[in-house]
Amino acid sequence: MAKDLSAIAPVIPIDRLDTLPLHRQIWEGFRTAILCGHLQPGQQVPSSRHLAEDLEVSRCPVLGAYARLLSEGYFESRVGSGTFVSASLPGQLPHRRRSRSTTGGSRCLSRRSSLLPRCETVPWRHGWGPFGVHQSALDQFPFAAWSKLLAEHGRKPRLRAIHHNDPMGLDRFRDAICSYLRTARAVECDPSQIMIVSGSQQALEITARVLLDPGDPVWIEEPGYPLAQSVLLGAGCRIVPVPVDDEGINVSAGVNLLPKARAAFVTPSHQYPLGVTMSASRRLRLLDWARDNGAWVVEDDYDGAYRYDTPSVSSLQGIDSDARVIYIGTFSRVIFPSVRVSYIVIPPDLIERFMAVRFSLGIFPSYLFQEVLTDFIRAGRFARHIRRMRALYKERRTALVESVQNTCGDMLEIHGAAAGMHLTVTLPLGFNDAEIASQAAKYGLCLWPLSPCYMNKPRHGFVLGFATTPADQMAGAVHQLWRLLKKQPGPS
Amino acid sequence: MAKDLSAIAPVIPIDRLDTLPLHRQIWEGFRTAILCGHLQPGQQVPSSRHLAEDLEVSRCPVLGAYARLLSEGYFESRVGSGTFVSASLPGQLPHRRRSRSTTGGSRCLSRRSSLLPRCETVPWRHGWGPFGVHQSALDQFPFAAWSKLLAEHGRKPRLRAIHHNDPMGLDRFRDAICSYLRTARAVECDPSQIMIVSGSQQALEITARVLLDPGDPVWIEEPGYPLAQSVLLGAGCRIVPVPVDDEGINVSAGVNLLPKARAAFVTPSHQYPLGVTMSASRRLRLLDWARDNGAWVVEDDYDGAYRYDTPSVSSLQGIDSDARVIYIGTFSRVIFPSVRVSYIVIPPDLIERFMAVRFSLGIFPSYLFQEVLTDFIRAGRFARHIRRMRALYKERRTALVESVQNTCGDMLEIHGAAAGMHLTVTLPLGFNDAEIASQAAKYGLCLWPLSPCYMNKPRHGFVLGFATTPADQMAGAVHQLWRLLKKQPGPS
Repeated sequence: MAKDLSAIAPVIPIDRLDTLPLHRQIWEGFRTAILCGHLQPGQQVPSSRHLAEDLEVSRCPVLGAYARLLSEGYFESRVGSGTFVSASLPGQLPHRRRSRSTTGGSRCLSRRSSLLPRCETVPWRHGWGPFGVHQSALDQFPFAAWSKLLAEHGRKPRLRAIHHNDPMGLDRFRDAICSYLRTARAVECDPSQIMIVSGSQQALEITARVLLDPGDPVWIEEPGYPLAQSVLLGAGCRIVPVPVDDEGINVSAGVNLLPKARAAFVTPSHQYPLGVTMSASRRLRLLDWARDNGAWVVEDDYDGAYRYDTPSVSSLQGIDSDARVIYIGTFSRVIFPSVRVSYIVIPPDLIERFMAVRFSLGIFPSYLFQEVLTDFIRAGRFARHIRRMRALYKERRTALVESVQNTCGDMLEIHGAAAGMHLTVTLPLGFNDAEIASQAAKYGLCLWPLSPCYMNKPRHGFVLGFATTPADQMAGAVHQLWRLLKKQPGPS
Repeated sequence: MAKDLSAIAPVIPIDRLDTLPLHRQIWEGFRTAILCGHLQPGQQVPSSRHLAEDLEVSRCPVLGAYARLLSEGYFESRVGSGTFVSASLPGQLPHRRRSRSTTGGSRCLSRRSSLLPRCETVPWRHGWGPFGVHQSALDQFPFAAWSKLLAEHGRKPRLRAIHHNDPMGLDRFRDAICSYLRTARAVECDPSQIMIVSGSQQALEITARVLLDPGDPVWIEEPGYPLAQSVLLGAGCRIVPVPVDDEGINVSAGVNLLPKARAAFVTPSHQYPLGVTMSASRRLRLLDWARDNGAWVVEDDYDGAYRYDTPSVSSLQGIDSDARVIYIGTFSRVIFPSVRVSYIVIPPDLIERFMAVRFSLGIFPSYLFQEVLTDFIRAGRFARHIRRMRALYKERRTALVESVQNTCGDMLEIHGAAAGMHLTVTLPLGFNDAEIASQAAKYGLCLWPLSPCYMNKPRHGFVLGFATTPADQMAGAVHQLWRLLKKQPGPS
């Protein structure tokens, strides 16, 4: 049947003014004609010479297009007979034209991905402004020195750094982090326990995958860090919210709820979002519970570097005598969020398993920031930057606390102002934080509602970042917040 | 009882020559004494003045240490009575001293992480050399121009780029990739469908998490890419290996094995590891199967940019009329592996779900390489580099093929030399590729055994990278391989 059609050329639209080269236009024309059924499997196509004449082009682009169609299998050549649309193509090719509308077949996705919250609900996706959380004072960052290091390592990368590499990260970077953690955070570790990852979220994910199977019960802090909840939801775990009081996670309450949890995810240095520091006795009780129940403790020390009114608080990991704490730290707060470099301190007997999971999730981290951060730490720039920012953020923190007390003292209660780059305020009953936050966006305020931090009965309020707003502008920003609060229907 | 002990000072070892500051030594001394039980809960500690006298230090470091112990909750002060070890600390604190040996309690890890292969088995962890796979000719990379871009974006980062950002990646980078993909790979997409991720492994992980639940059956190519197997194992899927023939994955065989698979993971441009190009008819059959069964197709186009003897092969995604193909591409091959930048082209109705999973797995990608790659592409440097490397790799590929044919033609059969940065050779029956690869490491050869690419009955052979070995050194490297093969017991 095919032979009867004897090499009639399909309509190949050629446009000499198009930026697409001719051979590409010819290839595209044939492919479309085949996919739409205008050319049928087994049908002969014109010889390249004839087609070139028909299209009034040179033979070169036609030969190029034919070679590609042959190599892709749309065409086949039969010795002595010429070139044909491959007879082996499926005969029925209806609606191949790129309507791109789906044909209504099943489009079933995973159940586990349906459990995750939609990204649209994340405030910082919609810009930033006063009170934005996890944002650092970028105008204070030593970009000139930083950029010099980038250029150096960019121009002459060490072969060992730039090639495929260790899933744990670069050795010299792990050495530098280890020294920092021992000194500044009283973490007990050696460099072999340190794994570099692309952000704390990845650290949480890897940790959850190593420790937990679907259905395993896990303690989390209530209220807690919503993205830790996401990780555990995504991992299929059974989440047990354990209330936080003014000493941190309430271990006795956890034991009453479910003593046989497999792990506890906690933020002992500066509880997120309430800002409590876990007390020494609570720490020891948590470690005792973990040891007695064969459970794990995951310590997310996300902003341990900044503490204002009291000396710094050492890590939970450092007093763990049974190697049951997985410690997570990050450079996102001290450098800037999009550096995407964090680390895990892994109990020695778990390193191999962590490596296997890390390998499967993303193989190994990019080299460049590892190299640059190593030099940055070794040259003392990291410590100096922390010192400078601690002074600056303390000033901004104090300005925020005073402004809130002076302006909205009757409405907002302040929590956790002793450390970090944010504090939390709670609203009286009857206010809706998410509603207020969405109104605030119109005034350029970046308010993070508190209620999403709760799994059960939420309190309403805001997590207020203070790192990016100069002290002398704080009162203005708080005044704007106050005007917004005044407009609310409030407690009825 | 505590009062009886009346503020006796514990032994605090002080060393003035130690680099650790005095306040830190004092803090550490008390903390250790408490954790070891040498100081008991409720016990009074000396006043700061007395301790300073005892230790013969100034009062400053003592006050610093006490403040920290108070803020951490190891100490409590009672008005009018002095300072005490907190009464609320657990009484029994045996063996807190950091023996770091675990106490023998259960150390149960997840079952899912136990399924993953150990990292030790990955050849490139142990260095590189001739035949290393996924390694590019770094000496040819334009590091000077690259470094200039790094320094520029490092010194004056765009605020929008460096702050917390879109989980999809930077807009201008997505635009640039979109243009490239439309032109060079005939991918049908617009920038809103493109998600930037940290490497193809992360792309596979995100995709698996969006599409598949534990227990869901999935087709993979047999032999196939071992790290795709890892992702699917980690995701708890039921893996169905479908044989590859000289047209690519055998769709009929897959239908016979398990027609109701939820997805197929394929490498149509240059099958890994055999190097077959999937034929047009096979592509259409695969898409028809997916449409008819409500299944998804994941196209990993890992080295589509390099093709030597025939024109480039367009993507499977480009002929999919039902938006069932998830397309994955990477910069690891063309730039260098540790750049860790890849991308996913997502069907429009799946974008929201991909974002939620990406967010939970690592929030968003680092900004710097996105910015630099955008400029690199826009300035035409990316296309120029691909052109130069295509010529260079073609020469090296040809040298490898000729050397293998001339030297080991009786033993090694060559597969898939038409594209990419590696080819595959198969060994006669009776040879053990993993055994030979481990011997080869001693001679500086980086041999990747073929057998781990199989789930079932493995063939033995090697995946041979040719990108890093100059053409005039290829014969020497192959000769070394030949001598090693000659030494083997071989088929008995």
